[in-house]
Amino acid sequence: MPQVKVIVTLKPSLLDAQGRVVQDALHSMGYHGVEQVRIGKYMEMQLNSEGTASLDDQVREMCDRLLSNPVIENYTYEVVL
Amino acid sequence: MPQVKVIVTLKPSLLDAQGRVVQDALHSMGYHGVEQVRIGKYMEMQLNSEGTASLDDQVREMCDRLLSNPVIENYTYEVVL
Repeated sequence: MPQVKVIVTLKPSLLDAQGRVVQDALHSMGYHGVEQVRIGKYMEMQLNSEGTASLDDQVREMCDRLLSNPVIENYTYEVVL
Repeated sequence: MPQVKVIVTLKPSLLDAQGRVVQDALHSMGYHGVEQVRIGKYMEMQLNSEGTASLDDQVREMCDRLLSNPVIENYTYEVVL
Protein backbone atom coordinates (compact mmCIF):
# COMPACT_ATOMS: atom_id res chain seq x y z
CA MET A 1 0.00 0.00 0.00
CA PRO A 2 1.55 3.36 -0.98
CA GLN A 3 2.69 5.59 1.83
CA VAL A 4 2.44 9.35 1.38
CA LYS A 5 4.56 11.79 3.37
CA VAL A 6 3.31 15.36 3.39
CA ILE A 7 5.18 18.40 4.72
CA VAL A 8 3.23 21.61 5.23
CA THR A 9 5.18 24.81 5.87
CA LEU A 10 4.24 28.42 6.39
CA LYS A 11 4.94 30.58 3.32
CA PRO A 12 8.42 32.13 3.57
CA SER A 13 7.10 35.69 3.57
CA LEU A 14 5.13 35.10 6.77
CA LEU A 15 6.51 35.49 10.28
CA ASP A 16 6.75 32.13 12.03
CA ALA A 17 6.09 33.06 15.66
CA GLN A 18 6.37 29.48 16.90
CA GLY A 19 9.73 29.09 15.16
CA ARG A 20 10.88 32.34 16.72
CA VAL A 21 10.05 31.05 20.19
CA VAL A 22 11.96 27.82 19.56
CA GLN A 23 14.93 29.81 18.25
CA ASP A 24 14.96 31.99 21.37
CA ALA A 25 14.74 28.89 23.57
CA LEU A 26 17.69 27.29 21.75
CA HIS A 27 19.70 30.50 22.16
CA SER A 28 18.96 30.61 25.87
CA MET A 29 20.17 27.00 26.11
CA GLY A 30 23.47 27.99 24.59
CA TYR A 31 22.96 27.09 20.93
CA HIS A 32 23.86 30.50 19.57
CA GLY A 33 24.58 29.18 16.09
CA VAL A 34 20.90 28.65 15.31
CA GLU A 35 20.01 31.41 12.86
CA GLN A 36 16.46 30.72 11.79
CA VAL A 37 13.85 28.19 12.80
CA ARG A 38 10.68 27.56 10.88
CA ILE A 39 8.11 25.03 12.00
CA GLY A 40 5.71 23.03 9.93
CA LYS A 41 3.56 19.95 10.01
CA TYR A 42 4.45 16.46 8.92
CA MET A 43 1.86 13.85 7.98
CA GLU A 44 2.22 10.20 7.03
CA MET A 45 -0.68 8.37 5.40
CA GLN A 46 -1.29 4.88 4.11
CA LEU A 47 -3.34 5.22 0.93
CA ASN A 48 -5.37 2.49 -0.70
CA SER A 49 -5.56 3.96 -4.17
CA GLU A 50 -9.01 3.44 -5.58
CA GLY A 51 -11.36 5.10 -8.02
CA THR A 52 -10.36 6.91 -11.18
CA ALA A 53 -8.26 9.77 -9.82
CA SER A 54 -4.52 9.16 -9.79
CA LEU A 55 -2.73 8.98 -6.49
CA ASP A 56 -1.03 12.33 -7.18
CA ASP A 57 -4.33 14.05 -7.95
CA GLN A 58 -5.88 12.61 -4.83
CA VAL A 59 -3.03 13.72 -2.55
CA ARG A 60 -2.98 17.22 -4.04
CA GLU A 61 -6.74 17.52 -3.58
CA MET A 62 -6.54 16.40 0.06
CA CYS A 63 -3.74 18.89 0.72
CA ASP A 64 -5.66 21.75 -0.87
CA ARG A 65 -8.94 20.94 0.83
CA LEU A 66 -7.93 19.84 4.32
CA LEU A 67 -4.29 19.27 5.13
CA SER A 68 -3.00 22.75 4.34
CA ASN A 69 -4.33 26.29 4.12
CA PRO A 70 -3.23 27.36 0.62
CA VAL A 71 -3.52 31.05 1.55
CA ILE A 72 -0.68 30.95 4.06
CA GLU A 73 0.96 27.55 3.61
CA ASN A 74 2.92 25.58 1.04
CA TYR A 75 3.13 21.82 0.91
CA THR A 76 5.35 19.17 -0.58
CA TYR A 77 4.74 15.46 -0.63
CA GLU A 78 6.51 12.27 -1.45
CA VAL A 79 4.96 8.93 -2.38
CA VAL A 80 6.72 5.78 -1.18
CA LEU A 81 5.41 2.81 -3.15
CA MET B 1 25.23 27.92 6.05
CA PRO B 2 24.03 24.34 6.66
CA GLN B 3 20.31 23.79 6.80
CA VAL B 4 18.93 21.10 9.11
CA LYS B 5 15.51 19.50 8.57
CA VAL B 6 14.11 17.67 11.56
CA ILE B 7 11.04 15.43 11.59
CA VAL B 8 9.58 14.46 14.96
CA THR B 9 6.98 11.70 15.06
CA LEU B 10 5.06 9.96 17.81
CA LYS B 11 6.37 6.48 18.56
CA PRO B 12 4.52 3.87 16.49
CA SER B 13 3.12 2.09 19.56
CA LEU B 14 1.26 5.20 20.72
CA LEU B 15 -2.21 6.20 19.59
CA ASP B 16 -2.11 9.33 17.43
CA ALA B 17 -5.40 11.01 18.31
CA GLN B 18 -4.79 14.00 16.05
CA GLY B 19 -4.04 11.69 13.12
CA ARG B 20 -7.21 9.75 13.87
CA VAL B 21 -9.27 12.95 13.67
CA VAL B 22 -7.69 13.88 10.33
CA GLN B 23 -8.35 10.38 9.03
CA ASP B 24 -12.01 10.59 10.02
CA ALA B 25 -12.29 14.02 8.40
CA LEU B 26 -10.79 12.67 5.17
CA HIS B 27 -13.21 9.74 5.21
CA SER B 28 -16.16 12.07 5.69
CA MET B 29 -14.94 14.09 2.69
CA GLY B 30 -15.03 10.97 0.55
CA TYR B 31 -11.41 9.83 0.68
CA HIS B 32 -12.16 6.32 1.87
CA GLY B 33 -8.80 4.98 0.72
CA VAL B 34 -6.94 6.67 3.57
CA GLU B 35 -5.98 3.87 5.94
CA GLN B 36 -3.82 5.46 8.58
CA VAL B 37 -2.74 9.00 9.32
CA ARG B 38 0.02 9.91 11.72
CA ILE B 39 0.97 13.49 12.41
CA GLY B 40 4.31 14.89 13.43
CA LYS B 41 6.31 18.08 13.53
CA TYR B 42 8.66 19.40 10.92
CA MET B 43 11.40 21.93 11.70
CA GLU B 44 13.86 23.71 9.45
CA MET B 45 16.87 25.48 10.93
CA GLN B 46 19.80 27.43 9.61
CA LEU B 47 22.84 26.47 11.67
CA ASN B 48 26.04 28.42 11.94
CA SER B 49 28.28 25.60 13.11
CA GLU B 50 30.62 26.85 15.79
CA GLY B 51 32.51 25.52 18.76
CA THR B 52 33.97 22.07 19.10
CA ALA B 53 30.89 19.85 18.84
CA SER B 54 30.19 18.48 15.39
CA LEU B 55 27.04 19.53 13.61
CA ASP B 56 25.55 16.05 14.06
CA ASP B 57 26.23 16.05 17.80
CA GLN B 58 24.74 19.50 18.14
CA VAL B 59 21.57 18.59 16.26
CA ARG B 60 21.11 15.38 18.22
CA GLU B 61 21.56 17.25 21.49
CA MET B 62 19.01 19.91 20.51
CA CYS B 63 16.52 17.21 19.52
CA ASP B 64 16.98 15.32 22.77
CA ARG B 65 16.81 18.39 24.98
CA LEU B 66 14.16 20.57 23.36
CA LEU B 67 12.80 19.63 19.95
CA SER B 68 11.43 16.21 20.83
CA ASN B 69 10.26 14.33 23.87
CA PRO B 70 12.35 11.13 23.76
CA VAL B 71 9.89 9.28 25.98
CA ILE B 72 7.08 9.35 23.42
CA GLU B 73 8.66 10.63 20.20
CA ASN B 74 11.24 9.61 17.62
CA TYR B 75 13.11 12.01 15.39
CA THR B 76 15.04 11.93 12.14
CA TYR B 77 17.05 14.72 10.63
CA GLU B 78 18.80 15.60 7.43
CA VAL B 79 21.59 18.12 6.96
CA VAL B 80 21.64 20.06 3.70
CA LEU B 81 25.08 21.64 3.26
